[in-house]
Amino acid sequence: MNRTQLVEQIQQKQSYLCVGLDTDITKIPKHVHSQPDAVFQFNKAMIDATKDHCVSYKINTAFYESQGLKGWEAMEATVNYIPATHLKIADAKRGDIGNTSSQYAKTFFEVLPFDAVTVAPYMGEDSIRPFLEYKNNWTIVLVLTSNAGSNDFQQLKIADGNTGKRLYEKVLQTTASWGNPGNLMFVVGATRASDLENIRSIIPDHFLLVPGVGAQGGSLEEVSKYGLNKDCGLLVNASRAIIFASGNVDFAEAAKSVAKQYQEEMAAYLKR
Amino acid sequence: MNRTQLVEQIQQKQSYLCVGLDTDITKIPKHVHSQPDAVFQFNKAMIDATKDHCVSYKINTAFYESQGLKGWEAMEATVNYIPATHLKIADAKRGDIGNTSSQYAKTFFEVLPFDAVTVAPYMGEDSIRPFLEYKNNWTIVLVLTSNAGSNDFQQLKIADGNTGKRLYEKVLQTTASWGNPGNLMFVVGATRASDLENIRSIIPDHFLLVPGVGAQGGSLEEVSKYGLNKDCGLLVNASRAIIFASGNVDFAEAAKSVAKQYQEEMAAYLKR
Repeated sequence: MNRTQLVEQIQQKQSYLCVGLDTDITKIPKHVHSQPDAVFQFNKAMIDATKDHCVSYKINTAFYESQGLKGWEAMEATVNYIPATHLKIADAKRGDIGNTSSQYAKTFFEVLPFDAVTVAPYMGEDSIRPFLEYKNNWTIVLVLTSNAGSNDFQQLKIADGNTGKRLYEKVLQTTASWGNPGNLMFVVGATRASDLENIRSIIPDHFLLVPGVGAQGGSLEEVSKYGLNKDCGLLVNASRAIIFASGNVDFAEAAKSVAKQYQEEMAAYLKR
Repeated sequence: MNRTQLVEQIQQKQSYLCVGLDTDITKIPKHVHSQPDAVFQFNKAMIDATKDHCVSYKINTAFYESQGLKGWEAMEATVNYIPATHLKIADAKRGDIGNTSSQYAKTFFEVLPFDAVTVAPYMGEDSIRPFLEYKNNWTIVLVLTSNAGSNDFQQLKIADGNTGKRLYEKVLQTTASWGNPGNLMFVVGATRASDLENIRSIIPDHFLLVPGVGAQGGSLEEVSKYGLNKDCGLLVNASRAIIFASGNVDFAEAAKSVAKQYQEEMAAYLKR
């Protein structure tokens, strides 16, 4: 899915919601849990329930890997079930030397039909280039995350002509030069609106994938105020707040209802 | 495998060699490639051929994931085949927010019986803690890598009282405080001996996992000169130089021969 198609979907649905399929098998409702392919059945129900209100799904690979072979099967079945109208993101945070990153890119862009994958920047350009070589896919670089540990390194001031620049800003500026707004996005945590405003000033055009709204405490209003651009430019992810909205038989309806609330709030921000 | 056991193995074998099973299916000899479980059969032959000369195996997860379900099966079979006398490392470079890193830790320490896993530091303390919570396992933090891209961010000078400290040194000092030499190692690329000397001065006791010797151009002599400590303190990895030493029917013998050469060179450095 290219940028034009993504922007069209956002306009049609009046939504920039990404639903995070962090499907923790221990939190699946009992009546689904008893099925042999419980994780896929849960995801299928989630996708059916939320697809009218979101434009993207993000599969957090950790929750699938931790189920071994069965988890890998569930990931495959899930990504194949997501409609072509939705951007399919592998939240994998990979990154290694070139010949190894090439294998990861192959995994998520060829073996599995994802549109996009999240990557970690610490190993530099040759760790990210192999993903960017896929011209019809998206590479989403970790820049500023929403967890407490983002203060440990991402917020360090670097000695770059005493400009007071922080590591995450340097990562953003440097990695932005390796791609363009049609093949590169950035992960930007939703917990600090001032950082988001700053990031938007550095890269006015790129899409940002924003986790941390909902269970992690970020505000959708603040994120939208500082993050929206002329093409929307935002994908706001909510995982637990949607997929575990209810742990009972009404789990899919509850998810749909929360996704719809997000969508309606987003529609209002898009009209401003 | 704990530190005492690892040091015993190093003493017994007079080796600190780690064999990297970066098993690229396209490079497997033809007569092995035709078997249904080719990757595992190749790895099995490699392990049988090299186990007397090395103390550790490092499985590069990317090469398995890129084969989908069959790759995951091969990884499972391989890690289960590695003898208990050898440290089993998952070179996975994972790292995410706490609840997600917990799933990765579970993957490599419970679902798969690895002793150790490599992790990326960019997301900070809560992204690494879940791995350290496994008291009988090792967490191996990326500090300084051997690729060209290590200059992009790892070598940046940070504004820390104008001490000229670089990001990788800050990452090393900070992450070292989260664990101890019995549960924490560091990935240190072999391409710059001066950096290795510097790293050893900061953390005299920890084990270092050193890739980049062989195909990537690092010198075993230099690494050993600056890296060895009283307990050895080094695991030097070679992947392609060993496992693809020959692409013909003699592939296992060729691998054994290269591993033996490394071991003999290491024995000499251990005696110095």
